[in-house]
Amino acid sequence: MGAATRERIIEAGSILFRRQGYAGTGMKAIAAAAQAPFGSIYHFFPGGKDELTGEVIRAAGRVYGALVPRFFDGAPDTAVATRCAFRGAAETLRDCNYADACPIAAVALEVASTNEPLRLATAEVFAHWVGGLTARYEGAGLAPAVAHRLAVSFVSMLEGAFVLARASKNAQVVEDAGEIMFEAVRAALDKAAE
Amino acid sequence: MGAATRERIIEAGSILFRRQGYAGTGMKAIAAAAQAPFGSIYHFFPGGKDELTGEVIRAAGRVYGALVPRFFDGAPDTAVATRCAFRGAAETLRDCNYADACPIAAVALEVASTNEPLRLATAEVFAHWVGGLTARYEGAGLAPAVAHRLAVSFVSMLEGAFVLARASKNAQVVEDAGEIMFEAVRAALDKAAE
Repeated sequence: MGAATRERIIEAGSILFRRQGYAGTGMKAIAAAAQAPFGSIYHFFPGGKDELTGEVIRAAGRVYGALVPRFFDGAPDTAVATRCAFRGAAETLRDCNYADACPIAAVALEVASTNEPLRLATAEVFAHWVGGLTARYEGAGLAPAVAHRLAVSFVSMLEGAFVLARASKNAQVVEDAGEIMFEAVRAALDKAAE
Repeated sequence: MGAATRERIIEAGSILFRRQGYAGTGMKAIAAAAQAPFGSIYHFFPGGKDELTGEVIRAAGRVYGALVPRFFDGAPDTAVATRCAFRGAAETLRDCNYADACPIAAVALEVASTNEPLRLATAEVFAHWVGGLTARYEGAGLAPAVAHRLAVSFVSMLEGAFVLARASKNAQVVEDAGEIMFEAVRAALDKAAE
């Protein structure tokens, strides 16, 4: 029982939080989904559900944060990359029948008022994503304040569109939202080039 | 024990879902918060938590939907109304110390994959809000498809900005997101007037 089991437990937590939220997901369900002995969860995460959830949040932060280079590297410009990221998210939602959106949003909404360490973990991940996107927009020539506002809006728009798309089982919401972000970035780039 | 108790129970459910999500909120906690006898919940909601949650979702849908006229009636134009709505939401978040965002988003993320009647209830409310906003943008002279895309993005952006603002305890996110939506509506109005 080693690193691979620990990773399976984190991945199982991530999947279950995405599908049924934080409070609705018990440690037993996570152990079962990870095909790990129940006791092994407390071996790897002596702090219990809070510690495991913190790891799920941080792992998801890294995984989704790594998508930024995937969409932005090699794109003709940051407006097109923005649109592609939303289209990619829409495709992923359809492929999984709207089961897997963001494991962090559900946790953030559930624990923000009641669990300070987990609230901070979600805040850190969002800040990391916003930082990565801000750097891309700044790199494209936008002023720091403009770049930051677009980045904050990118993450907000995507998280909110996930909520609506999951509710309606319709990923067109995510594509529509992506068009608005595409146009916002395009307008900012045009203005900066004037 | 009449309509007033029933209303108090729905209001208590709405507050608790906003603060701690759906799965984390038990019927006992709702009864206590409503200062209602535990048994009265099943008197008013024989279908139990699912029925009560459906009512909370629909009631919140009406309450928040009624904010659309409040911001759009009498505003100089729909772009300014859009910005004001986001600024108002930011102010509300600060006033309640980030406890009260949207009761529907948390439920939507938690139950979309696991509870079909509640998923449909959240989808109906989002569709109602999008419909109200679409009508406003159409009324301002925008083509139906453009109006619909802005309305979908308005609701997505606001819901997502709530997630980030609650996580970071910083309502500037909501104002930044509102500026992007303001500019998107302004650009659409300018284009329509050409």
